[in-house]
Amino acid sequence: MDMNIIEGGVTAAKGFQAAAAAAQIKYEGRTDMALIYSEKPCKAAGTFTTNVVKAAPVKWDRAIVEGKKRPQAVIVNSGIANACTGKEGMRYCKETAKEAAKVLGVEADSVLVGSTGVIGMQLPMDRIKAGIGMLAESKSADTQSGTEAAKAIMTTDTEKKEAAATFEIGGVTVTIGGMAKGSGMIHPNMCTMLSFITTDAAISQKALRKALKEDVQDTYNMISVDGDTSTNDTVLLLANGRAENPKIRYGTPEYEAFKKALHYVNETLAKKMAGDGEGATALLEAKIVGAKTKEQAKVLAKSIVCSNLVKTAIAGHDANWGRILCAMGYSGAQFDPEKVDLAFESESGKLTIIKNGTAADYSEEKATEILSKPEVTVIADIKEGDEEATAWGCDLTHEYISINADYRS
Amino acid sequence: MDMNIIEGGVTAAKGFQAAAAAAQIKYEGRTDMALIYSEKPCKAAGTFTTNVVKAAPVKWDRAIVEGKKRPQAVIVNSGIANACTGKEGMRYCKETAKEAAKVLGVEADSVLVGSTGVIGMQLPMDRIKAGIGMLAESKSADTQSGTEAAKAIMTTDTEKKEAAATFEIGGVTVTIGGMAKGSGMIHPNMCTMLSFITTDAAISQKALRKALKEDVQDTYNMISVDGDTSTNDTVLLLANGRAENPKIRYGTPEYEAFKKALHYVNETLAKKMAGDGEGATALLEAKIVGAKTKEQAKVLAKSIVCSNLVKTAIAGHDANWGRILCAMGYSGAQFDPEKVDLAFESESGKLTIIKNGTAADYSEEKATEILSKPEVTVIADIKEGDEEATAWGCDLTHEYISINADYRS
Repeated sequence: MDMNIIEGGVTAAKGFQAAAAAAQIKYEGRTDMALIYSEKPCKAAGTFTTNVVKAAPVKWDRAIVEGKKRPQAVIVNSGIANACTGKEGMRYCKETAKEAAKVLGVEADSVLVGSTGVIGMQLPMDRIKAGIGMLAESKSADTQSGTEAAKAIMTTDTEKKEAAATFEIGGVTVTIGGMAKGSGMIHPNMCTMLSFITTDAAISQKALRKALKEDVQDTYNMISVDGDTSTNDTVLLLANGRAENPKIRYGTPEYEAFKKALHYVNETLAKKMAGDGEGATALLEAKIVGAKTKEQAKVLAKSIVCSNLVKTAIAGHDANWGRILCAMGYSGAQFDPEKVDLAFESESGKLTIIKNGTAADYSEEKATEILSKPEVTVIADIKEGDEEATAWGCDLTHEYISINADYRS
Repeated sequence: MDMNIIEGGVTAAKGFQAAAAAAQIKYEGRTDMALIYSEKPCKAAGTFTTNVVKAAPVKWDRAIVEGKKRPQAVIVNSGIANACTGKEGMRYCKETAKEAAKVLGVEADSVLVGSTGVIGMQLPMDRIKAGIGMLAESKSADTQSGTEAAKAIMTTDTEKKEAAATFEIGGVTVTIGGMAKGSGMIHPNMCTMLSFITTDAAISQKALRKALKEDVQDTYNMISVDGDTSTNDTVLLLANGRAENPKIRYGTPEYEAFKKALHYVNETLAKKMAGDGEGATALLEAKIVGAKTKEQAKVLAKSIVCSNLVKTAIAGHDANWGRILCAMGYSGAQFDPEKVDLAFESESGKLTIIKNGTAADYSEEKATEILSKPEVTVIADIKEGDEEATAWGCDLTHEYISINADYRS
C-alpha cells in the first residue's frame, strides 16, 4: 500500500471534472469562478471556520455535509466572500446552488458553494449565473481543467496550489487530489482558505469524516500567515467511489493507507499556502521536538510561526533567537527555558544557536546564510519527552503591508 | 477629592529624584541608563510579564516587591534586556543592585532593576557601574530630571512618555506621577514595556497592591502593538508617604480617589505606548458597548486591536469593516453578528458603518476622512447588555517592518 506522488489536482481522481470561467465577479482579464463536478454523487466530509461570523456558503455547505445529502458539484467564486451579507446573502447562495443544479442536471441540494474575496458585498447574480453556464459547458476531466480551476480560485495568491497522490488496495489504484487557495487572513483553526479534495476511493462515510477531521489538526490548523481566522474557511473532501476498490472502513490498514495519502495532499497544500502568505519571501517551518505532549508541542510551534517579531526577523535574515524563545514563552505552554536547544536549518545546512537556553558559540554569518533561503526551519528541543509537532508560516514583509493597506477584502 | 492633571513624571511626587546617564550600554550619543531615587524607603507594588521566559531583573524585582523589603531606588538600562542570559545574567543583575545600593547608601535589597533592549547578550558591568556613578551624582528632584529619565529608558519609542496627577485628602495634596517606555513586543498581559509610577501617598500595603493589580487589567493589559508579550514587562509603583496624608486604606473613599488618579496616570501612559507603537501613524481605539459581561467586551475589543488585517486597513485609511467583524468573530467571545452596529469616530466626526450586521448607507469618502486622523476609534454595539471595555493599539505600517527586520531586540 505504498503511496505515490503524482501530478494533478481535483481531476486526478477518476470521475471528476473541473472548469474555470472569467465571470467578472471582481476581476477583469482573469478567471474568477471554478467548478468541480463528479459524474456520480459523492460522500462528503468538511471542516469549516470557527469564526462566529460565518459566510453564507459556510452555513450552506455545512448543512449539506453534515446531513445525508450526496453532493455532486462545487461552485466557487473568488471575487466576493458573501460574508456579513445577511438574509439577502443567504438567498443568493441558495440561488447559486439551485442554478448550478439546474444547469448540471443534478439535485438542488447536491451543489456545494465556496466563496472568497470581499466581505460585505452582495453577489452580482446575473454574472454568477452566466458564469455557471460557462463552467457547465467547458467542464472536463483532463489535468489542465483541474489546473485552470486551481488558478480561478486564487485571490492574492501568487501561485496555484495543487497536489495529488495514489495508493493501491488489492491491485486497485485509488487516487486523492486537491486544490487550495489562501494567502491572507490565514491562521490556525482554518484559514481564509478554501481547499477542495476529491478522491475516487470507495470509503465508508465514517472513515471519510474521521480521516479529514483528524488530518486537518496536523495540516491546515498548523499554518498561520497573519493570525486572522477568516469567515469563509472551508475544506471539502468528496469521494465518488469510482476506483471500485473494496470499501475502506475506519480503523483498518486500508484506512491508514488512505489517511497517509490524504495527509500528503493536505500537508502539501497547507505548506503551499503558508509559503505563499501575502508578501512572503520565505516559508517558515517551526518544529518542536522532545515535548511531553503533542498538544504542548503544537502550541509552542504555532506561537513561533504566529509572532510578528519572529516573522520580521526571518524577513531580515536575522538570527534573532531571543524573539523565538520569547514567542515560546508567551504561548501558554509550560517548559523550562533553561533546557531549550535551538537550531536553524535550510538547504544551506543546520546550525545550533542555543544550548540549554543561552547562546551557543555560532557564526552569525552562517546563520544569515541559512536564513536567506526560501524555506527555513526552526527546530527547538525542549527535552521533556518524545512528542513533536510542526507548524508553518511565512516571513512578514513590506509587501504584506502594501497588499493589505489597500486591498478591500 | 477632585483629581487635577499636572505636568511631570516620576519626580512630580514629593521626595523622589531622578537622573539619566549616557553609559554606552548600547547606544552612542544618547542616554541609556536612568535612576529613580526616593529619599525614604517605599512601599512597593508590581506586576510582571506572564511570559514563561522571564528576564533576570523581572525575577529580582518580583522577589523584592512580593517580600517585605522597602525599596528606595530603581536602576534602568535600555540597551540590554538581560533575558535568556542564564545564571551569569542573574549574577549581573544582583551586582547592578548591589553597586547602586553602595553608591546611593541604601540597603542592598532595596534597589529594583529594570532592563529592556537586546535579548541574549550579557551586561557590560564596567559600563553599568560607571553609569550608576553618573546617575547617583546627577540625581535631582526637578521636573527636568524626571523627563531626562523618561527619555533615557526609550528604545524604539519616538516620544518620551510621562503623566502625573494630584488629588486632595483632608487638605493635603497627594501626587502620583510616572514614566513608561514601550513600542514593540507589546501585547495584552504586559508588554515590552516598563512603567514606573511614584507617589508620595501614605497608603497601606494592601491598598497599594490592590490598586495596581486592579488598574493594570484596564490599562496596560488592554494595549497591543504586535501581539508579542515580552520577557521583561514590568510595572512598578512606589509610595514613600511623603505627602503625610492620613493613611489611605483599602475600600475607603480615599482609596477610590487614589485609584482614580492612578488610573489616569496608567491609562495615559498605556495609550501613549499604543499610539507610539513601532512604525505607527495612528492610535487605534476599540470600544465595545452593549456587552453582557465586561470580560466579553474586553475579549472583543482586544481582538480588534490585535488583528494585523484591521491594523493594515487603518494604515490605509480604509473603512474595511469586514475585517473588524471578522476579528470579533474569531476572538473566542460569543455574540450575534446580525445585531452588531459599528461606527468609526475621530476628530473629523462619527459615522455609522454597519447596522445590524450589514453595511449601512455611508459615504466612503467621509469614512476615509475620519480614518485619516492620528486617533481613530472603532465603536461596536453588540446590544446584549450594559457592559463595555476599551482596548488600544495602532496601525501596522511599512515602518514596523523596517524597524523589526533589522533591529536585534
